[in-house]
Amino acid sequence: MDYPSLTLQAAVDALARLPGIGKKTALRLALHVLKRGQPEADALGNALIALRRDTRRCRHCHNICDNDTCSICTNPRRNPQVMCVVEELQDLLAIERTGQYNGLYHVLGGIINPMAGIGPDQLHIDDLVQRLQKGSCQELVFALRATLEGETTAFYIAKKLQGLPVRLTHIARGIPVGSELEFTDELTLARSILQRTAYHNPITENN
Amino acid sequence: MDYPSLTLQAAVDALARLPGIGKKTALRLALHVLKRGQPEADALGNALIALRRDTRRCRHCHNICDNDTCSICTNPRRNPQVMCVVEELQDLLAIERTGQYNGLYHVLGGIINPMAGIGPDQLHIDDLVQRLQKGSCQELVFALRATLEGETTAFYIAKKLQGLPVRLTHIARGIPVGSELEFTDELTLARSILQRTAYHNPITENN
Repeated sequence: MDYPSLTLQAAVDALARLPGIGKKTALRLALHVLKRGQPEADALGNALIALRRDTRRCRHCHNICDNDTCSICTNPRRNPQVMCVVEELQDLLAIERTGQYNGLYHVLGGIINPMAGIGPDQLHIDDLVQRLQKGSCQELVFALRATLEGETTAFYIAKKLQGLPVRLTHIARGIPVGSELEFTDELTLARSILQRTAYHNPITENN
Repeated sequence: MDYPSLTLQAAVDALARLPGIGKKTALRLALHVLKRGQPEADALGNALIALRRDTRRCRHCHNICDNDTCSICTNPRRNPQVMCVVEELQDLLAIERTGQYNGLYHVLGGIINPMAGIGPDQLHIDDLVQRLQKGSCQELVFALRATLEGETTAFYIAKKLQGLPVRLTHIARGIPVGSELEFTDELTLARSILQRTAYHNPITENN
């Protein structure tokens, strides 16, 4: 529809380009910004402009950071002997949210996908090999998506690392917490049986 | 959670202040902006900053516009004999979307709500009375929300207009299109029976 203001129209169009935001939601957001004061509009607008302009990628792991090296790589309490390979920044952030991982990361920036024209050269794989050749890392954890592309990428990296004294692992695949057996797909269920782990008896072990 | 970049943190926080956008969605939107080019980020940021700064309210009807007077008030094809009273800009836009109204508008900027401390003086009511006193309007359509506050506001305006030769109407209330009778609340159903309208027979009338 035509809005009575070209400025409003421009804002709605720009907001509607965001993922998951349709024209109606975009209008609602624009009207919210319009109702609030100019400082709030400036804060939001400037934060979005700064997002790309003022952030860097860590020269070691390609995590997002404000400087040259990210807060994980420079943190002396992180364990440099373990490194986790992830596809994108959001995967790193998801693992960080669990609070269960204390090693370093390596963000590939994508996944090998010949159908989409993404080969190993477009990813930070050579980079990863060089980091591992320097030596302090002893375990590389693959945390890639559980698809053919994820498997291919892990396989390609594993081949590149042949001969290096680095143990390769990948994050566990199995039944999600809270799921019911009967609704789990067969491949996942098969894997979760084949890769069963030791049962920790909470009664005998905690006493 | 703590993000590895303060710039990212600021963008997520600013986005999460928008209505209906939680922290997770805010992060998803921020990462999308980050992935796109700087021009797209600039376009979005600047559009939001401009939204309030570069828009005005029409001096006649308080619709949003880029100049002094809005495109509805200056449109010679709109009928100046009918004026529709709405609470907020989004109500005006919603009625415009229907394409079924060709008169002018008057945006009150809110609704009388003593519980929230909003009295008639904070709304564009005196304004409306002056517009109507000037004379060309013959019908005033109330399109306010169907609540006690909406009724109160309409009643207050109607009292202010006593003696003026303006016919007062309000938008129809009844069963929404597509609704089933048994699930309609009693008040709405009662109103829709009391305010029944003539049935237009599509067979006899179209032939």
